[in-house]
Amino acid sequence: MPHSKEVMVGIDMGGTSLRALVVDGENQILAIEKDATNPALKPDAIIRDLAGLVEDVMRSAGVKRKRLRAVSIGAPGAVDPVHGTVHNAPNLRWKKVALRDKLEALVHVPVFVENDVNVGVVGEHALGAGQGAQELVGVFVGTGIGGGIISRGRLYLGSRGAAAEIGHTILLVDGPRCGCGNHGCAEALASRTALERDVRAAIRGGEKSLVLEIMKERGKERMTSSIIQRALRRHDPVMTKVMKRAQYYLGILVSNIVNTLDPECVVVGGGIAERLGEEFVRPIRQTAYGYFLRRHDASRVKIVPGLLGDNAGSLGAVVLARQRLKEAA
Amino acid sequence: MPHSKEVMVGIDMGGTSLRALVVDGENQILAIEKDATNPALKPDAIIRDLAGLVEDVMRSAGVKRKRLRAVSIGAPGAVDPVHGTVHNAPNLRWKKVALRDKLEALVHVPVFVENDVNVGVVGEHALGAGQGAQELVGVFVGTGIGGGIISRGRLYLGSRGAAAEIGHTILLVDGPRCGCGNHGCAEALASRTALERDVRAAIRGGEKSLVLEIMKERGKERMTSSIIQRALRRHDPVMTKVMKRAQYYLGILVSNIVNTLDPECVVVGGGIAERLGEEFVRPIRQTAYGYFLRRHDASRVKIVPGLLGDNAGSLGAVVLARQRLKEAA
Repeated sequence: MPHSKEVMVGIDMGGTSLRALVVDGENQILAIEKDATNPALKPDAIIRDLAGLVEDVMRSAGVKRKRLRAVSIGAPGAVDPVHGTVHNAPNLRWKKVALRDKLEALVHVPVFVENDVNVGVVGEHALGAGQGAQELVGVFVGTGIGGGIISRGRLYLGSRGAAAEIGHTILLVDGPRCGCGNHGCAEALASRTALERDVRAAIRGGEKSLVLEIMKERGKERMTSSIIQRALRRHDPVMTKVMKRAQYYLGILVSNIVNTLDPECVVVGGGIAERLGEEFVRPIRQTAYGYFLRRHDASRVKIVPGLLGDNAGSLGAVVLARQRLKEAA
Repeated sequence: MPHSKEVMVGIDMGGTSLRALVVDGENQILAIEKDATNPALKPDAIIRDLAGLVEDVMRSAGVKRKRLRAVSIGAPGAVDPVHGTVHNAPNLRWKKVALRDKLEALVHVPVFVENDVNVGVVGEHALGAGQGAQELVGVFVGTGIGGGIISRGRLYLGSRGAAAEIGHTILLVDGPRCGCGNHGCAEALASRTALERDVRAAIRGGEKSLVLEIMKERGKERMTSSIIQRALRRHDPVMTKVMKRAQYYLGILVSNIVNTLDPECVVVGGGIAERLGEEFVRPIRQTAYGYFLRRHDASRVKIVPGLLGDNAGSLGAVVLARQRLKEAA
């Protein structure tokens, strides 16, 4: 069986959905399958779903099962990639789950586990907006704000594997309370959760806004990226103002990252960036450049939206697994 | 001439003083000489002073001139280590000075130039408080706040050579104005300059303080580290309060660094840290640990005062020059 015929399955595990794809040796996507996750299920049941999804997506790709080399998963929360365990994933209500070992017992090929944002950043670096950069930082804005660092071309994990938690760097000492318990974190200022908090507060304060109406129309209880996009398209004054402020904070977050790490490239990813692209990133870039200590060649630092959208995590998981298989060989 | 008999001269160039030392192949200090810098002098005159200082310190060490292998300088401000130029050093009023080439023409041995904080961090990493760490960050608190990053055991410079400018990361959006023109930088909140601003403002506001009296006694116009130390020893209420707030900000700065880079060790250096040691660092550490996203093993990240004091920069300059000579060989 020649290596070039081998395929890999990459899976992005979210709090609400699973996304799996089959990729060949040239990183071409052969098939994609999605499934809902039910956080009410116990870990073992979700892991059985994962194993089922692997078989489904392999069938969709029309690739013989014996050609599957490995499965690689981006999982939310605190992950130990060495042991393949998920320490703590609040969205899934997981604590200390031996994801790798349990899934290997079901799929009978090597399984790799890494943090979901880290694999997203690896994906954008290897195949997306950050190709060729030796030093790159990814900033993923969603329910929270996650980050990933590429240093000398490789994923940087830090001494405890706790690096790149940029969503919990403080931008505003004694600012709004964050889910982590501290105050003034970037995540408490500029995540989708913070945007929704600020929009609802403005509406409660009597400001006119279409947001609740749009949510009702679309049958959504939460202010998703698509709701944000619609409200901006309809020039909703509250959404426009709240988004502008969040972009200002994100610009400062990016400049803090650049003043610390001076990467070649910052990729802004996640649901809002995917929908709004350059419209979302332009004001972030403008603010960031103004806050660089070294401004005369600021534009050498590229600040760009991600290119891979929903596939960043699962593609990055595959890229990372291939590196790890090579290292182990 | 065996290698082990070779010596190096390391120089730390400050805005107000030059400090040179001769070091043997085992990093033992053979002699130290100091000289005042006069920022009113033109760069060429200061460079002639540097050359004179090299001869003086070699004489003090009693080492034959032909045993001098290289001179290595930590210079303040924006430095291009590849070309050995000082781009911009406001304290010295230097702009685009070809320090390496001009000094090599006078001393006739290779000259290396690096940023003063970077060499200080290299010194603490190689010979001081951060020995053995693969990932380390130095935070130097003085007139400003500078930083340096060691990654995989080596000085990390970033893609433009602009990394580790942690003094200009924003901790308090729209906070007090910084010398760099932005607002809310760590340097504008917790440097010695910020401390002095806050102490003077409190006194102007009618708060009782011994600080101005102590400055008069000691014949100082600026609130130096020794003035700070004396005021704290005498339980000056304004100094105690202002210092406590600065330590809180520095704790948050350190936690931002750790949440981003997850190093094994953070070395807090500079004049105040040198004088106050653990008394200065303890509250910084306590605040930082409370702001780590990953807290259960927070104490694995060491947060310690520097050990080398005034010698950190000149020793680090020598260590770095030795690495660069080796790489070039």
